[in-house]
Amino acid sequence: MAQIVSEVLNNPLLRAYFFYASLLVLKMLFMSLWTGTKRMKTKTFSSPEDIVRLPKAKVSTNENVERVRRAHLNDVENIPIFLVISLGYILTNPSYAVTLLLFRAYTLARYIHTFVYAIYVIPQPARAFSWGTGYAITIYMAVSTLSYFW
Amino acid sequence: MAQIVSEVLNNPLLRAYFFYASLLVLKMLFMSLWTGTKRMKTKTFSSPEDIVRLPKAKVSTNENVERVRRAHLNDVENIPIFLVISLGYILTNPSYAVTLLLFRAYTLARYIHTFVYAIYVIPQPARAFSWGTGYAITIYMAVSTLSYFW
Amino acid sequence: MAQIVSEVLNNPLLRAYFFYASLLVLKMLFMSLWTGTKRMKTKTFSSPEDIVRLPKAKVSTNENVERVRRAHLNDVENIPIFLVISLGYILTNPSYAVTLLLFRAYTLARYIHTFVYAIYVIPQPARAFSWGTGYAITIYMAVSTLSYFW
Repeated sequence: MAQIVSEVLNNPLLRAYFFYASLLVLKMLFMSLWTGTKRMKTKTFSSPEDIVRLPKAKVSTNENVERVRRAHLNDVENIPIFLVISLGYILTNPSYAVTLLLFRAYTLARYIHTFVYAIYVIPQPARAFSWGTGYAITIYMAVSTLSYFW
Repeated sequence: MAQIVSEVLNNPLLRAYFFYASLLVLKMLFMSLWTGTKRMKTKTFSSPEDIVRLPKAKVSTNENVERVRRAHLNDVENIPIFLVISLGYILTNPSYAVTLLLFRAYTLARYIHTFVYAIYVIPQPARAFSWGTGYAITIYMAVSTLSYFW
Repeated sequence: MAQIVSEVLNNPLLRAYFFYASLLVLKMLFMSLWTGTKRMKTKTFSSPEDIVRLPKAKVSTNENVERVRRAHLNDVENIPIFLVISLGYILTNPSYAVTLLLFRAYTLARYIHTFVYAIYVIPQPARAFSWGTGYAITIYMAVSTLSYFW
């Protein structure tokens, strides 16, 4: 095995990074399936070629579908940049305990965000709090990385 | 040259990663040009400042433009997380042949997805199959990474 | 400190990478706050649960909000793939001066893009030029990476 690979595997922070990255990627992948499920249930599709063999299906928008798409877009806006900047943060020599806590809090917050936004709608500020937790962690990591590499 | 760079360059999996990442990034960049081309053809733009010197252009939406934008958004939802999780997958000590096959299948599937969605519309399940191939590969890599770093 | 971390920290190109990545991530994070500000000002929200305690607020779209969302989506389409491919470019043994120039030009171009699109609208081709600068740099890096790892 190449040297670089074994060094990553010996680094507990990088191991934690790929563990939580997997959980976040799987959550994002779920959004596509969930959008598809909602489209089937409401028979609402976005492209004419999707409805050819589905009786009663139409090209339209439906609030239940759009809600899932908004939650998905929020993931797309937030999670990829978290996955880049948290790598930068790991390089700033942070404590293992703090980093693990931040990865766990971020991942949990994003799962809660999806749940209260797109699965079982819970009144605000449930979504604002879960979104804000992930947002604050990302800002903290970005500012830490910025000041470290200044 | 720094040690870390030469180690990446000596790792065939990482070399393959950056080769296919380039192809995927170039495909995504093409979507912006293709959207612009469709906007010009249909004289449909999204912001008032875009139409000032274009006679007959209007701020509106057009299905030919929206179709390209949906294909682009599908890239944005899927490709960046693939590029993160496939790095994690490389660290799980996979076989070179399997990894290369997965990179090739993923890249080909995403090129086909764009073609049948936004360039020359082919009836379903062409798009569903090409999308599903990339989706299944991403899930496989994410689950492999998750179980490896558990 | 792990070997891999100290090697990254000794590599001036990777140090520059994480510095400019932080600036780009912070700019993207700003878009969410700016969207929220515009939503509050125009009392326009996307989900019914957001307006419960806000008198006169409605679920609707508003051009001032949509403009910020378009600028944000443009970031989402462009910046994450830049952050992946610029890592590949660093591995192609580029000169430090050129790489630093490209990082600076890209970051500046994206900040200008946001400013002229979503903060203070400046007539075209201000946005086209700033977008095109980032686009051209990303293509250059992707083609360099592709040909290096061919």
